[in-house]
Amino acid sequence: MNAPVSIHDITAAEVRLAGVARQTPILTSPALDEIAGRRVHVKAECLQYTGSFKLRGAWSAVSALSDAERERGVLGYSSGNHAQGLAHAAARHGIPSVIVMPEDAPASKIDNTRAFGAEVVLYDRAGGVDRAKVGSEIQRERGLTLIPPYDYPQVIAGQGTCGLEIARQYTGGPADVLVCCGGGGLSSGIALALSERAPHLRLRTCEPAGFDDVARSLRAGERLRNEHLSGSVCDAILTPTPGALTFPILDALAGPGLVVTDDECLRAMALAFKHLKIVVEPGGAAALAAALFRADDILGEDVVVVATGGNVEPDLFSQAISHHL
Amino acid sequence: MNAPVSIHDITAAEVRLAGVARQTPILTSPALDEIAGRRVHVKAECLQYTGSFKLRGAWSAVSALSDAERERGVLGYSSGNHAQGLAHAAARHGIPSVIVMPEDAPASKIDNTRAFGAEVVLYDRAGGVDRAKVGSEIQRERGLTLIPPYDYPQVIAGQGTCGLEIARQYTGGPADVLVCCGGGGLSSGIALALSERAPHLRLRTCEPAGFDDVARSLRAGERLRNEHLSGSVCDAILTPTPGALTFPILDALAGPGLVVTDDECLRAMALAFKHLKIVVEPGGAAALAAALFRADDILGEDVVVVATGGNVEPDLFSQAISHHL
Repeated sequence: MNAPVSIHDITAAEVRLAGVARQTPILTSPALDEIAGRRVHVKAECLQYTGSFKLRGAWSAVSALSDAERERGVLGYSSGNHAQGLAHAAARHGIPSVIVMPEDAPASKIDNTRAFGAEVVLYDRAGGVDRAKVGSEIQRERGLTLIPPYDYPQVIAGQGTCGLEIARQYTGGPADVLVCCGGGGLSSGIALALSERAPHLRLRTCEPAGFDDVARSLRAGERLRNEHLSGSVCDAILTPTPGALTFPILDALAGPGLVVTDDECLRAMALAFKHLKIVVEPGGAAALAAALFRADDILGEDVVVVATGGNVEPDLFSQAISHHL
Repeated sequence: MNAPVSIHDITAAEVRLAGVARQTPILTSPALDEIAGRRVHVKAECLQYTGSFKLRGAWSAVSALSDAERERGVLGYSSGNHAQGLAHAAARHGIPSVIVMPEDAPASKIDNTRAFGAEVVLYDRAGGVDRAKVGSEIQRERGLTLIPPYDYPQVIAGQGTCGLEIARQYTGGPADVLVCCGGGGLSSGIALALSERAPHLRLRTCEPAGFDDVARSLRAGERLRNEHLSGSVCDAILTPTPGALTFPILDALAGPGLVVTDDECLRAMALAFKHLKIVVEPGGAAALAAALFRADDILGEDVVVVATGGNVEPDLFSQAISHHL
């Protein structure tokens, strides 16, 4: 594998992230250990500033730009966690950010992104307006740099800092490290960090059923697509296909992908509320769901789980904890 | 003040707690800063094992017993967080624990306490059975040591370890440290630790309206009682009067007490869910409520808040986040 990102890129990103990204804690609970049949170590990335790990990659990317590029500002396409991470990274650098979002995105996500300091440009998705066309016009006019959500070396390097932390914080024996996976930015970054710093830890991607493009691609050895683009409660990690940069890294370093149902993700959310006192969104609970409900597909006395995001609507959260506890 | 607990007791407790209590993180959010009008640093003790800081004091007490005492086991009266902390501390020491609880306590609290390894003895509170009589009989028969929830030097020393962490983790300027206060074990322990290790930080107790015995006692310079024993959603911090050991410490070291409404606690819970991604119980959110909604009673550009517990019923949590977000 000729990786577009090296361990040196990840350690350099960690230096730039010092004092910005929080080293998130690893949490445990005897009750979860009992359900899983092994010790479950939950890296609570939902406690990251902006509510998700996306801040790491966005900050890494913004801070790696040349002064001239950075001054002009950055552009992102996202209706979720990447938008908030990028907006916050730009605001704290004192530079403009433009986030292109569909006008039918949930009002709370639009509001949140604005609250983190971004200029939000809405486009008419239902009316067939092309998002890329809207974005590239603004980008050209204003000289913005596009920061993609995962398929971008400095984003992968930033997400990899989460893997450096796991390598330092987890002091047990060989274990699988379960990571919720959309486009693969976090998974590939962590996989690279672990392969250098903790080779006794093996990365495993976790996806919702029906959107298991990474698991299928890993089996096939080539990038496959999902049939649908929506239809799971795990909206934060639905992507059409593994990234062109991220997939070769996962193909070289990851174990077999794990797949969980939406209902299992909601149950994992509820159990994280009850036993860990953290708020995890459905897509952010996929890895915990795999640890708890796919125990037979995992080896070892320990498992490390990355809970990736905590940006969830109150109504959905209420339903999950009322129904599953 | 001739304190029954010294900084040496607290540092010794910290040594015994190493590898047991988690150093809980300090979390922040720009949205909360904006509401409060200053930087809000939230020490998330709800992420402590067993869901509250009570583990610190219980472990400190159990681990300080002589071998002979410890072998016989410990006894506690509690229907809440102290019970779970004590049960867990005893179980991990491999010794028996007996928790005396009213038989009309919520089933979930009884179940949780049993799950942490305690033998739960129920008594008929409504039928007028005397709790102390039930407990002292068992205690005598089995040679158990009573570990009270706050008015006990080794418990205060254990809670003080939270103050040592704040002194190390908070690197800003002079600030008030707001702590949810029932009997005063945590508040007095933190106050002692700060007075030695971070004298630029001043402890302030936070209580629900109608149950502000500590705030009134601090004003009067003597221990006053609350009129009622129940009737606030902040059940975890309702105590009749400040402790005989804890009050002199608070009287010597704490600033004026802060008082918040139940509704403000529920709003603070909801905002902690939204912006910090943590689960806080109503009584555990009193200090955050004071930081957010009693800003005029606080001085300085920063405020430190201890979120003390996260053991909350799903229905109550759902109501709070649905109603207040």
